Amino acid sequence: MERLNVFGPCEAEVDEMLSGIAQPDQGLYLGICVTFPWMRITLRAEAESDEKAAALLAPAVRLVEDRLGEYIFSRGETSIDEIIAGLFIRQGLTLALAESCTGGMIAQRITSISGSSRYFLEGAVTYSNAAKSRQLGVGAALLEEKGAVSSEVASAMAKGVRQAAGSDLGLAVTGIAGPDGGTDDKPVGTVFISLAAPDGCWTKRFQFSGSRDEIRTITAWTALDWLRRYLARRGAA
Amino acid sequence: MERLNVFGPCEAEVDEMLSGIAQPDQGLYLGICVTFPWMRITLRAEAESDEKAAALLAPAVRLVEDRLGEYIFSRGETSIDEIIAGLFIRQGLTLALAESCTGGMIAQRITSISGSSRYFLEGAVTYSNAAKSRQLGVGAALLEEKGAVSSEVASAMAKGVRQAAGSDLGLAVTGIAGPDGGTDDKPVGTVFISLAAPDGCWTKRFQFSGSRDEIRTITAWTALDWLRRYLARRGAA
Repeated sequence: MERLNVFGPCEAEVDEMLSGIAQPDQGLYLGICVTFPWMRITLRAEAESDEKAAALLAPAVRLVEDRLGEYIFSRGETSIDEIIAGLFIRQGLTLALAESCTGGMIAQRITSISGSSRYFLEGAVTYSNAAKSRQLGVGAALLEEKGAVSSEVASAMAKGVRQAAGSDLGLAVTGIAGPDGGTDDKPVGTVFISLAAPDGCWTKRFQFSGSRDEIRTITAWTALDWLRRYLARRGAA
Repeated sequence: MERLNVFGPCEAEVDEMLSGIAQPDQGLYLGICVTFPWMRITLRAEAESDEKAAALLAPAVRLVEDRLGEYIFSRGETSIDEIIAGLFIRQGLTLALAESCTGGMIAQRITSISGSSRYFLEGAVTYSNAAKSRQLGVGAALLEEKGAVSSEVASAMAKGVRQAAGSDLGLAVTGIAGPDGGTDDKPVGTVFISLAAPDGCWTKRFQFSGSRDEIRTITAWTALDWLRRYLARRGAA
């Protein structure tokens, strides 16, 4: 049996991407188990011998890997937090976080790993604008002009926390978790995530939906997954 | 049926404190359901009529309230986070957090409540000593002399974050969540919690046990419960 853990596409998309891989008539089974907001793909082969089962399973696993690519964040029981920890430690990099709508959820996940003090320097949960200015150096004029939930403020937060902490990477999140606070322009679920690194700063807008808790959870996961992809590419380069 | 939610004593202690209240032969039942690290006391009465059941239940509930006192943080389905939110809003106070071993867990809990931006200004997840100094103004000499996990540093963190954020209350946590990092003097599970308020600063040492996750969870709960008790007493005064 092989387990591949996936984050990014929804279940229907994964189902579509994996179509044709399962061959129940030949003893090759594929299951998708959704544990919001990620999912686990389980591949299982039944044959007369262990060798035959393994021979049936291996190409199917490769097919799943080819089709899902970077969406696969780990295998077996390894969490995304553990994967990120391994990437940081292998590359000798450090991290600082600036969180608004996730309110410490990302920091809590990062620090759930024993030994995270080797790469995690600090986090700022900047709920008020005053905190965004004082802790992260986000200009009051920028906050006024663009709003706390904006691409410009997200990247200023990421760059600001990176500089203040003296870390290699700065990851920032700002958004509207709801249920109140949405506008026509920026409805509930609008989130900006920004990653500041030595080789550049990237910021992206997302539109999530769900309850306050769901929006916060998927925001934290999306930010962590972005970090994972950045580190994985950097490590492979 | 009445539900009373309790934090503080262990199940055996609660069992002892509530001895003699249940009277199954008269239709009065008492159950304790533990959901780490808190528990729920359920009182239920069975009688010929609803009136008789209510008459049986009411004095039993009062007895439980008398015996458990401040250990009861809420009734029914209300969480401790919601209770704290209500206390802050009613009293018009603001909060800032400084977390080390809990790594953002307290901030995440506080901000899980919609509308928490009315009282929560900011949180600092200060994992490195440099962050404790820069964000909270904790002196390098104090960190060197007493260690990051000490009563003195905990109170300096609470006072520091309160001053930096300009909040009414500053709550700080520093400890050793493990599994590594313990010493003879300060074994894994050693935690200092400090609350800085306009009327004083209180700091206390705790010794918890369990896994990294359990120690972090009970530390966050203990800090939140301390905040709840402070606000409840202040509101009653």
